[in-house]
Amino acid sequence: MHSIFETEVTVRPDDIDMNNHVHYSRYLDYILMARYDQMKKDYKMTMEEFVVRGFSWVASELTIRYKRPILLQDETVKVRTQLEEFHGAKVVINFWIVKGERDKIAAQGQVSYTMVAINSGRPARVPDDIVEKYQV
Amino acid sequence: MHSIFETEVTVRPDDIDMNNHVHYSRYLDYILMARYDQMKKDYKMTMEEFVVRGFSWVASELTIRYKRPILLQDETVKVRTQLEEFHGAKVVINFWIVKGERDKIAAQGQVSYTMVAINSGRPARVPDDIVEKYQV
Amino acid sequence: MHSIFETEVTVRPDDIDMNNHVHYSRYLDYILMARYDQMKKDYKMTMEEFVVRGFSWVASELTIRYKRPILLQDETVKVRTQLEEFHGAKVVINFWIVKGERDKIAAQGQVSYTMVAINSGRPARVPDDIVEKYQV
Amino acid sequence: MHSIFETEVTVRPDDIDMNNHVHYSRYLDYILMARYDQMKKDYKMTMEEFVVRGFSWVASELTIRYKRPILLQDETVKVRTQLEEFHGAKVVINFWIVKGERDKIAAQGQVSYTMVAINSGRPARVPDDIVEKYQV
Repeated sequence: MHSIFETEVTVRPDDIDMNNHVHYSRYLDYILMARYDQMKKDYKMTMEEFVVRGFSWVASELTIRYKRPILLQDETVKVRTQLEEFHGAKVVINFWIVKGERDKIAAQGQVSYTMVAINSGRPARVPDDIVEKYQV
Repeated sequence: MHSIFETEVTVRPDDIDMNNHVHYSRYLDYILMARYDQMKKDYKMTMEEFVVRGFSWVASELTIRYKRPILLQDETVKVRTQLEEFHGAKVVINFWIVKGERDKIAAQGQVSYTMVAINSGRPARVPDDIVEKYQV
Repeated sequence: MHSIFETEVTVRPDDIDMNNHVHYSRYLDYILMARYDQMKKDYKMTMEEFVVRGFSWVASELTIRYKRPILLQDETVKVRTQLEEFHGAKVVINFWIVKGERDKIAAQGQVSYTMVAINSGRPARVPDDIVEKYQV
Repeated sequence: MHSIFETEVTVRPDDIDMNNHVHYSRYLDYILMARYDQMKKDYKMTMEEFVVRGFSWVASELTIRYKRPILLQDETVKVRTQLEEFHGAKVVINFWIVKGERDKIAAQGQVSYTMVAINSGRPARVPDDIVEKYQV
């Protein structure tokens, strides 16, 4: 079992849609924000370092269950993510978006990112030293 | 088996992210665009008619597999959706986003929307006459 | 001369466009975020309180000069705004978006918001007690 | 006086904000969409051709007056743009966003884009042959 890391994300007015809650696609932006933050803060390898080595990450699969609306009045949410596993060029991540004092679940799910070589755009097996860094 | 309906969606420059392809959250916006269009065009009941009757739809679950990047040069994609089933307050929809002359699959998946009563915000069983309209 | 208030806004990966800097329309979202924050923090009257009184604000005019790109690596920017004047139903706001340790100007300009009565959608003269609250 | 060109832009549900009309920053996305479309359709030089020659365009200044809200029910708007002038590395563009059968003005204004050399990121004087292409 890997660690669960957390990033606080501020709800912006432009995230709110005609139903007066955070638009359903913006949850994916919150998750990405959290991953970038945690790459730096928790895995100690920023996205720029991946790019310098010729790699990028693209989303390959995502499942999300929306449990509770997020309102502008919530002001912030916490996005928690956890490495589930590496699988060739793919990393599988569990996530939970929670809100309020009692950390109620607004959404949860799983997202897979595939590492690609920037030059070719093709999937690239995640190098061992990077897999190692993620063993936290 | 229900009909598969199609909506053409134009790729906008603001949909493109730092990887030079359509940002992964914007796929959800394309799907929503298609559903609104098809409500009117194919199911003959616009979102406004739902609202007049006191109902709205919120996304409750989504699974998407990203197969090919969508580029600005693709100019448009086609979003195809198909009713899978009604289940109480929920409607389950299959979708495919295809591109190019040969309709290659850029992404596919399934999304569930829950009908809610606008007044209470609570799930509302889909009325029979609406279920009927969707039997196409 | 009115006070200049400040809000820190975090740059999100989805704000970045194909040019690898914050997309030009997202600057407007940062400004709105700052205004909402400052309504609460500095003017002591939240957007919800306006709504309770039957009012909302809509943008009526905006001028922005883009001076420096904002990068994901900048991580945050500070959005400073200052009341310039009330004019009937309109409030005119000066803004500056600054970044980095030395607060270099990324963009600056002026935005006007018009108060509207929610019921009618029509412009509504800003009530004196609200004008009063903004004299800080 | 230069020609006024027109692009139809479809209003997407995700463009709508909590006020039930198109969010004020999305107008800028509509304008950019129109410029890309018109580069190809009317000026016969696509953005990709600029990039191949080592150039890109960044927004340097924008003024917009919001006159009428754009609703989801409007379905589409027309974005009209007109070259005002070239000025060194800068091109100044007038724009109008109109809607409905009678082409009522939803917004209008002026935007300046600066040509930059991709390598250096610095402003680059617009080459004569490109200025020539825009004399329509």
